[in-house]
Amino acid sequence: MIVYTDTISVSTRGKGTYEITGNVAEIVRKSTVTDGTATVFVQHTSASLIIYENADRTARMDLEAWFDRMVPENTSYFVHTLEGSDDMPSHIRMVLTRTSEVIPVLNGNLQLGTWQGIFVFEHRARPHTRNLTVTVIGN
Amino acid sequence: MIVYTDTISVSTRGKGTYEITGNVAEIVRKSTVTDGTATVFVQHTSASLIIYENADRTARMDLEAWFDRMVPENTSYFVHTLEGSDDMPSHIRMVLTRTSEVIPVLNGNLQLGTWQGIFVFEHRARPHTRNLTVTVIGN
Amino acid sequence: MIVYTDTISVSTRGKGTYEITGNVAEIVRKSTVTDGTATVFVQHTSASLIIYENADRTARMDLEAWFDRMVPENTSYFVHTLEGSDDMPSHIRMVLTRTSEVIPVLNGNLQLGTWQGIFVFEHRARPHTRNLTVTVIGN
Repeated sequence: MIVYTDTISVSTRGKGTYEITGNVAEIVRKSTVTDGTATVFVQHTSASLIIYENADRTARMDLEAWFDRMVPENTSYFVHTLEGSDDMPSHIRMVLTRTSEVIPVLNGNLQLGTWQGIFVFEHRARPHTRNLTVTVIGN
Repeated sequence: MIVYTDTISVSTRGKGTYEITGNVAEIVRKSTVTDGTATVFVQHTSASLIIYENADRTARMDLEAWFDRMVPENTSYFVHTLEGSDDMPSHIRMVLTRTSEVIPVLNGNLQLGTWQGIFVFEHRARPHTRNLTVTVIGN
Repeated sequence: MIVYTDTISVSTRGKGTYEITGNVAEIVRKSTVTDGTATVFVQHTSASLIIYENADRTARMDLEAWFDRMVPENTSYFVHTLEGSDDMPSHIRMVLTRTSEVIPVLNGNLQLGTWQGIFVFEHRARPHTRNLTVTVIGN
């Protein structure tokens, strides 16, 4: 059995979604795993993971607009505000999305659907370096 | 080590939850894995996965009602509307639930709690065929 | 390949977040796995998992306050109310967070980020015993 671990580093330019499908596919290729799973894990509490529509940019714009309204900055009852007005909303937006995703690998390929892409979802206003670990397990 | 991959196809009749616990259990049985994990992955961006109360239908009705109100159709600021008023809400509802779930397998059985069932959550109004991949890894 | 399964039992004192990072790390140590993954799975439909900021208690207070407002008790259209006013909100809060999380293991250590802790999120008002399964797979 093969266990192959690698990392991805994403330089974000502030709030938004950043596609990493190609990076994950490249790690699967390097792993030489034919059949198994690829676990993607983001090592942060103010950025998260989503598997999302990757064809039309407007689907991502609307998603970001919805989260901006659903978990607004400057929410009156927030106590955890020392790190800025975008900090506490970033933790909640992270909790509502994902920290880990596990994607099947078959015949050496990620088994994503036609419209699925893997994205880092940056919730902070300023640029950040986001670190992810990818673990490919299989035969 | 065993890596066993199989697929599930679910014909939905529009919005709602569709239980697949039996389908996943059958794949685990076929895999002959005694101890390990079963990864369930849905290959769509307008349908998702949940592990949910499977005893009382009203718990699922209330869940669906809550999502209908939380991510309403015809939201005024949505730009991604070409595929219908139920399309953009379906992407957001998918992001708020799950694309992958990993369930422990012990002594050949899924280690679900008493009230837990595995469901496909269809977010589109019309019937769709939803494809899932299940990967069982273990000894 | 090693497949090591163990359980964690958490006695909650009602609504709130309960850290289990140390329990999961201890299971990884016992497993003797060097490189692989640890799958954490909560066997309930009214409690869930989150990987969250573990440095400042106020970040967890604000999270809990947000969920209390977003999925309020005594929501007028809920039908599933026989088990108490905190029951139906607990199912929805569970669906919005996670049932399973998969954390990479490298050199025998969970690859969590600096601020990440693993928490059980109790959504019921009264104390409960919450059971989790941890499956460590790797070499």
